[in-house]
Amino acid sequence: MSLSVAIVGASGYTGAELLRLLYLHPEVEITSVSAGKAAGQSLVDIFPQFRGTLELELESFDADRTAAAAKVVFAALPHGQSAQVVAAMRQRGCAVIDLSADYRLRDAQTYARWYSAEGHPHPELLGEAVYGLPELHREAIRSAKLVAAPGCYPTSALLAVAPLLRAGLIEPTPLIIDSKSGASGAGRSPGPATHFPEMAEGLRPYKVAGDHRHTPEIEQELSAVAGRSVTVSFTPHLVPMVRGILTCVYATPRAGTRASDLLDALVEGYRNEPFVSVLHDSLPDTASVRGSNRAQVTVRYDERAQRVLAISAIDNLVKGSSGQAIQCLNLMHGFPETRGLEQIALFP
Amino acid sequence: MSLSVAIVGASGYTGAELLRLLYLHPEVEITSVSAGKAAGQSLVDIFPQFRGTLELELESFDADRTAAAAKVVFAALPHGQSAQVVAAMRQRGCAVIDLSADYRLRDAQTYARWYSAEGHPHPELLGEAVYGLPELHREAIRSAKLVAAPGCYPTSALLAVAPLLRAGLIEPTPLIIDSKSGASGAGRSPGPATHFPEMAEGLRPYKVAGDHRHTPEIEQELSAVAGRSVTVSFTPHLVPMVRGILTCVYATPRAGTRASDLLDALVEGYRNEPFVSVLHDSLPDTASVRGSNRAQVTVRYDERAQRVLAISAIDNLVKGSSGQAIQCLNLMHGFPETRGLEQIALFP
Amino acid sequence: MSLSVAIVGASGYTGAELLRLLYLHPEVEITSVSAGKAAGQSLVDIFPQFRGTLELELESFDADRTAAAAKVVFAALPHGQSAQVVAAMRQRGCAVIDLSADYRLRDAQTYARWYSAEGHPHPELLGEAVYGLPELHREAIRSAKLVAAPGCYPTSALLAVAPLLRAGLIEPTPLIIDSKSGASGAGRSPGPATHFPEMAEGLRPYKVAGDHRHTPEIEQELSAVAGRSVTVSFTPHLVPMVRGILTCVYATPRAGTRASDLLDALVEGYRNEPFVSVLHDSLPDTASVRGSNRAQVTVRYDERAQRVLAISAIDNLVKGSSGQAIQCLNLMHGFPETRGLEQIALFP
Amino acid sequence: MSLSVAIVGASGYTGAELLRLLYLHPEVEITSVSAGKAAGQSLVDIFPQFRGTLELELESFDADRTAAAAKVVFAALPHGQSAQVVAAMRQRGCAVIDLSADYRLRDAQTYARWYSAEGHPHPELLGEAVYGLPELHREAIRSAKLVAAPGCYPTSALLAVAPLLRAGLIEPTPLIIDSKSGASGAGRSPGPATHFPEMAEGLRPYKVAGDHRHTPEIEQELSAVAGRSVTVSFTPHLVPMVRGILTCVYATPRAGTRASDLLDALVEGYRNEPFVSVLHDSLPDTASVRGSNRAQVTVRYDERAQRVLAISAIDNLVKGSSGQAIQCLNLMHGFPETRGLEQIALFP
Repeated sequence: MSLSVAIVGASGYTGAELLRLLYLHPEVEITSVSAGKAAGQSLVDIFPQFRGTLELELESFDADRTAAAAKVVFAALPHGQSAQVVAAMRQRGCAVIDLSADYRLRDAQTYARWYSAEGHPHPELLGEAVYGLPELHREAIRSAKLVAAPGCYPTSALLAVAPLLRAGLIEPTPLIIDSKSGASGAGRSPGPATHFPEMAEGLRPYKVAGDHRHTPEIEQELSAVAGRSVTVSFTPHLVPMVRGILTCVYATPRAGTRASDLLDALVEGYRNEPFVSVLHDSLPDTASVRGSNRAQVTVRYDERAQRVLAISAIDNLVKGSSGQAIQCLNLMHGFPETRGLEQIALFP
Repeated sequence: MSLSVAIVGASGYTGAELLRLLYLHPEVEITSVSAGKAAGQSLVDIFPQFRGTLELELESFDADRTAAAAKVVFAALPHGQSAQVVAAMRQRGCAVIDLSADYRLRDAQTYARWYSAEGHPHPELLGEAVYGLPELHREAIRSAKLVAAPGCYPTSALLAVAPLLRAGLIEPTPLIIDSKSGASGAGRSPGPATHFPEMAEGLRPYKVAGDHRHTPEIEQELSAVAGRSVTVSFTPHLVPMVRGILTCVYATPRAGTRASDLLDALVEGYRNEPFVSVLHDSLPDTASVRGSNRAQVTVRYDERAQRVLAISAIDNLVKGSSGQAIQCLNLMHGFPETRGLEQIALFP
Repeated sequence: MSLSVAIVGASGYTGAELLRLLYLHPEVEITSVSAGKAAGQSLVDIFPQFRGTLELELESFDADRTAAAAKVVFAALPHGQSAQVVAAMRQRGCAVIDLSADYRLRDAQTYARWYSAEGHPHPELLGEAVYGLPELHREAIRSAKLVAAPGCYPTSALLAVAPLLRAGLIEPTPLIIDSKSGASGAGRSPGPATHFPEMAEGLRPYKVAGDHRHTPEIEQELSAVAGRSVTVSFTPHLVPMVRGILTCVYATPRAGTRASDLLDALVEGYRNEPFVSVLHDSLPDTASVRGSNRAQVTVRYDERAQRVLAISAIDNLVKGSSGQAIQCLNLMHGFPETRGLEQIALFP
Repeated sequence: MSLSVAIVGASGYTGAELLRLLYLHPEVEITSVSAGKAAGQSLVDIFPQFRGTLELELESFDADRTAAAAKVVFAALPHGQSAQVVAAMRQRGCAVIDLSADYRLRDAQTYARWYSAEGHPHPELLGEAVYGLPELHREAIRSAKLVAAPGCYPTSALLAVAPLLRAGLIEPTPLIIDSKSGASGAGRSPGPATHFPEMAEGLRPYKVAGDHRHTPEIEQELSAVAGRSVTVSFTPHLVPMVRGILTCVYATPRAGTRASDLLDALVEGYRNEPFVSVLHDSLPDTASVRGSNRAQVTVRYDERAQRVLAISAIDNLVKGSSGQAIQCLNLMHGFPETRGLEQIALFP
């Protein structure tokens, strides 16, 4: 018997990506698809790629109806808004996988500082939320009822550097994280920054020097790995492509670290990971992971400058969002972890 | 028990696309993957997107070994080269789906004129070859042993206009076909025309005014549909995008044709087609079919100018090549026609 | 002594392109730059490319102040809005070059049908307006006080086909015009159609089958050239690039037309034109004219299909808009026609 | 009387860019244009953008003929090859501006290590070569006879960080330099890395961790500024756009450095620079400098992580190559420094 799932917030890119992937998930039946302003519209009018496969009408969200229809709810909503929906669904006994930032930070004060001056609307739920990066929290995810799917930038940074930090090969502070993202990370609302004529030959950083909200999320998880407080200097960029994040993390090697130790630590750390490829001779490229849940990672030792460079590439909408959320679903329900996520990247 | 299939010519885009799709086809086992110059190399060194899923070594092609390994052979080779491989495999009893142009034209003289002054190397096989467009030749494909998968431009043109021609709503000659293709249609060999700095803001026609080899293929099939000789004026363009073909066909309406007849003919003609979406109010867009085997078609009547405009959008590497080849495989072996081709387009 | 010019509507792309080009025009001084909603803002805050060169504040438009500051006014405003500004400036004795569609159509009823149900706000000015395509109306432009700079699509279509029509080599009706434009033609307001993630791999037609407002403009001018009524079937497309229009015009050859006649007619027609390059062996490419006022044109005879194919490439913001407006300014004021427009295309 | 200049190596992008800019330089006459394999061909066959303006035939290089024709020679050749041409022209008394790397490094051994195991072919000329970054070596350039125009990455890195280093606000070692370049930096030869279908959605680093030849050039110049040896960890990336380099330099602030000191140092350092814009509230964007000789720079203090982030944007083919070479020409010959370089960026 299939697992019934609901998608709340199907008019954005992460909602659509959930639909694309879950449509082919053999254990899952999509029983409820809702949206906010787009409620009442046909899915294919909003996302024509579903024509011929998913021809359904978007409902308006109703917590009771959703709970009656589905055992698991994916919340693909803006932060703030998501917190309420998650709470409503948890109250009704549904398991929830939240793709927003609302339950990623364990500390309500940190949430308040970065996201909302009024504080977290449901701090009582923070304790049960599990950060949904399987490579760090697989066991906790298995038994979780509320999973906070990681941000796209944090996923790319954590995968690049966590095994090195855990192995004690690099100094935990400061880590310099230089990330470059495709335009889909900015969401579906048109705006000047993603207007084609202005973006097509433009390359620019934004929210630099500690301004981006993914900073505390990265620090929280890296601090847990390192066993001490980690501070990062995080620089996101907008690159004229649709999908993909490439992240470079620059770190100071610990005394005694040899070049070979670094790659060994990645290989060891990801030995049994189904979705992380450790590259030896080549370098990560977003084109090789587009549309797939796979991450590519590698590390290099710059002997001249005595610096470690860890690099990762992911698809921001898959491993950086909806694919990873489904990976969590598989863990929560005892399905094979790769179920529904076997697609190979679309290349070229 | 799975059907064993071989791919000959796995180092090009159509070969890679066959691998991407067949990897998830539940009825098929890929038992042989060969290449020419790339033989002996690892697939992931040539196509990094397969890392973690298809980590195999490319064989050099050997007809006997391939016949021992596989019941069906996909030939994804340049024309000329393909003709030989196809003949060798047919001799050994394998069914063959040829993605090249070698067996698409029924008339050996037409082949000689457009492809090779020396004539067709195996004219004796032309009689058994079936043109692999299921929307036109479904029944013949079911019992075929040699299928010639259509060219990308012909697929887009035929799907746009065949039902209108069959219904007698447009004059068969001349048809003006203006097609625009992404860069992947030019194949994997780098060259000035597809050098990123020169293509990124470039839009240009090429091989215009009867110069492109897909012209006779389009005319052959449209003539069969119309029951009389059709001549087309075909203009291909290279557009700065990776995948997709958008085709506009301009035709003269037959006397008495009403606007509503046109759309009705498309709807009727594609009523049971699993991969053709007829659009009513919207217009085809390559972004909506990228990575999928779906075609979008529509038609409009320009009353002022008394002209019919039929439009189609496909992914040139899927419905325009490898996906369609798999659709034929499904027909030949009695699998559900959509098996292995259920993926929704990657959007955005 | 420099000629004083004003730009009304400097916050859009055509306004910015006027500034880019006029800044280096040796006979011109920009004495007034105004905008609507952006009035009061610094130009460099809206268009950072002017930092270090044109650091001025955008005024709010005032007809009297503008008339006091400038002898010539460029109106780079949306249609409707432009009509009023043009009238106000003409009343005050300024020469006006209008980049909107408001004074392009000679017939007020045609304007009413395509642009505004309420009719043209200043039909009394239509008589003095000259259509600003120098290749067709050079002498009239020299003495004009009100020039209506042509639309981008009409410029590309007219340049491709006017000499063939004038020479009587093609049938005037119907002409099929298939045009492909970069995203900058859609203007600076962000919207779903030009949102980077959705446009980058998308190729789509829009406003097909007689729906696009440039249709009557093309027909008006071609009818004048042909000396009889011309009807066109016009299909515009949006292509994932920033600048450039490539247009293919398909026509029926008149009886007796030989292939060589066609190219001869283009060569002859553009013999003394400073901005039109007739290609013999190669085909137009938007990449070769980006940022320049140059048009590339050629023609081919498809003997098999008995069809004529005329092709042009322009930069929609230069020859298709602001550059052509400056070309008109040069003619109106007796400057060398190429003054300020000598830049070579930016390639790659 | 015009200054006669020759361009040796006109078939590459930097050669074409010299032609584009010098064509409008009022003090200069291009009297000789030569190429290697392309000699004998028409310039417009190689670079169609010159049709109608520079319709000349490419000569084969001959030192005597070039010396007879021109007082100044621009060498736009690959390294190694350039060294020979430069020596030949210097022997014949011509001033030379070399766009290759051959005379950028002062130390012949460093050259040998990074460029050629056989050592520098003309070490005797290294002493007279001046590094052509006007912002660092303006006075020396004025009297130079041999100028080595800087590499594109070094230009971007040096402009971002030199004033901070000179002012003693940051620690000189290690500097982490993360640069992102458009595809034109890879030159005109097609290859897999810049094949459109594989680059369009690809983002990747290359030659990381001390592997890129621009590393010693950056270190040489920064060491001179700092007055002590500087080591950098340099990471270049290839980004799917045509032109532009965006560089982020991460540094450790010296004790006592305040946030305001940093921006003050940039403002002060570039107060009289005609081509460097220091941004206060906004961030550099390659789209704002495309086609122009302008650089945008800014700096931010990441207080949380105690790191300094300096950022720059340039057009790699203009300020990063041919434009800067012309800026040097202007200095060498007493022309106003901005002559021929006044063009505003092409935006959008």
